[in-house]
Amino acid sequence: MTTPYLLALDWGTSNLRASLLDGSGHAIDHRSAPGGVMAVKNGQFSAALLALCGDWITQFDCPLMASGMIGSRQGWKEAPYLDCPATIVQAAAGLTSVTIETTDTGKPAPQLHIVAGLKCVDAAGEFDVMRGEEIQIWGAGLPPQSCCVLPGTHSKWAWLGNGGEVSQFRTFMTGELYGLLTQHGILGRLMDFEAAQKTFHRDAFAAGVQLGLKGHAQMSHAIFAARTAGLMGRIVPAGLPDYLSGILIGAEISGATLDGKPVGGVTLIGDDGLCVRYEAALEVAGIEAKRALDGTTTRGQWLVAVAAGLVRPSP
Amino acid sequence: MTTPYLLALDWGTSNLRASLLDGSGHAIDHRSAPGGVMAVKNGQFSAALLALCGDWITQFDCPLMASGMIGSRQGWKEAPYLDCPATIVQAAAGLTSVTIETTDTGKPAPQLHIVAGLKCVDAAGEFDVMRGEEIQIWGAGLPPQSCCVLPGTHSKWAWLGNGGEVSQFRTFMTGELYGLLTQHGILGRLMDFEAAQKTFHRDAFAAGVQLGLKGHAQMSHAIFAARTAGLMGRIVPAGLPDYLSGILIGAEISGATLDGKPVGGVTLIGDDGLCVRYEAALEVAGIEAKRALDGTTTRGQWLVAVAAGLVRPSP
Repeated sequence: MTTPYLLALDWGTSNLRASLLDGSGHAIDHRSAPGGVMAVKNGQFSAALLALCGDWITQFDCPLMASGMIGSRQGWKEAPYLDCPATIVQAAAGLTSVTIETTDTGKPAPQLHIVAGLKCVDAAGEFDVMRGEEIQIWGAGLPPQSCCVLPGTHSKWAWLGNGGEVSQFRTFMTGELYGLLTQHGILGRLMDFEAAQKTFHRDAFAAGVQLGLKGHAQMSHAIFAARTAGLMGRIVPAGLPDYLSGILIGAEISGATLDGKPVGGVTLIGDDGLCVRYEAALEVAGIEAKRALDGTTTRGQWLVAVAAGLVRPSP
Repeated sequence: MTTPYLLALDWGTSNLRASLLDGSGHAIDHRSAPGGVMAVKNGQFSAALLALCGDWITQFDCPLMASGMIGSRQGWKEAPYLDCPATIVQAAAGLTSVTIETTDTGKPAPQLHIVAGLKCVDAAGEFDVMRGEEIQIWGAGLPPQSCCVLPGTHSKWAWLGNGGEVSQFRTFMTGELYGLLTQHGILGRLMDFEAAQKTFHRDAFAAGVQLGLKGHAQMSHAIFAARTAGLMGRIVPAGLPDYLSGILIGAEISGATLDGKPVGGVTLIGDDGLCVRYEAALEVAGIEAKRALDGTTTRGQWLVAVAAGLVRPSP
């Protein structure tokens, strides 16, 4: 096996994913467990970590880095948010360290370095926060003055400045709203989810995006169309979930681009299924979309570790 | 007992409310049961009605009128939506009748007259619908060219034309969104509902309204402030529910008044607790609010029955 240079942990709310990286930052091995922050009781984070990769820690004498909700108040130790504009150099200087409690007394107790999340203030003077997405942004290798979108439960739009720093970002609760409205709300009653899952109803989705794009200024009205379009037979029950998804994503796109469409389009970072959906929506909106390469999380962890001097890339 | 002139039913999704009205349209007696449309199995609507007020039907030979979801596809018989602009005269002409199945064979089987809901087409070309609220609008005695708001799970804004007709209306899913986000969503996790219920956090609510008013064009971002304000300690956990409520109502108000604030303010129609909240929000928005008198539902049913010639008011 190639010598590991870094043990990188993506430690979120639900899952703990560990990757061993080689001297170029490429993943050699992966492991994961449902040992997310919410699953760890009584602060037993050392035990959860050792259960997944105690053997790696004993065997390889490499630094450990973690990103994600492990750095939140509910996590191992709070890694205070960095203010935007924020650079990867500041992220590297802002690591929060904890000691891993091992029974292996032969050498100094290993340290885990936790990456800070980011915070900013929006146009309305309200805070916005991210934790876990920032490492993907660092890892995506985005050019200066670009814009990226990380679709998800809480979708994030981030804008980079002249020096590649994250100058601003915005959270949109698109995925959560979709889940709540379809699983627990009245809109779901007219929907045929079983039939919906079999195919992507592209026309219904595109119609929803169009509506969301122009109706974003009265979004709590626009989403009601996912009921009336069903009642009036305009959209078939199997198409209604995609129609609603389109309305919400369309409203997100209009809301995120109030100050104008991003010059040079946006880079999508995330899982394939969601990115396909956002690509379709951005096309309707007339915004060019490209995809980040896979592996943005470990790439970001690697780059922060290098910037922090924790690892020295192999020549 | 004064002679009843009309047996008026407010037959919604969850409840069935019956009122006996005198020759001036005033309520003489009331009864209600949890026999809403959703609770009636196998189309047993006659039985549900007779269980609540079969004795009234036998004893008093007065016409019967119903409004609400009983006229929906899931109800007794679909009363097709009237298109806007719609007048009370059209509502009276558009009643849908069903026969009540009684075992009382001594006289002709009584008829129940169901009031139609309204539909309109919004600026985006989408349908909007109401069923049950229209009767309250007819009953509120609003002046021509006025605007009224019926707060609720699905809040309705309606605009009346020169002749008192309902020319347009818009639905906002404000109450449903609030319920979903607080009961099933991530925003609820930081909220202290027990403490919140003890008092109306007017300052937190007003701050939310301000944010919703200016942030309505990116509403799925604005609501995230109900998380960050909690995380950053800007709003106490007991104030967060009212803060979120304010954001949603503020966004509704801005969304409903995109074409300008209603000249002469708005009339609120609904339950006291919600109206207090909307009055506070409208004040922040600089829109004058007044309240409709109580009893808009039976007043509306009475006026439609008179317009339909079903009853002749006592001299």
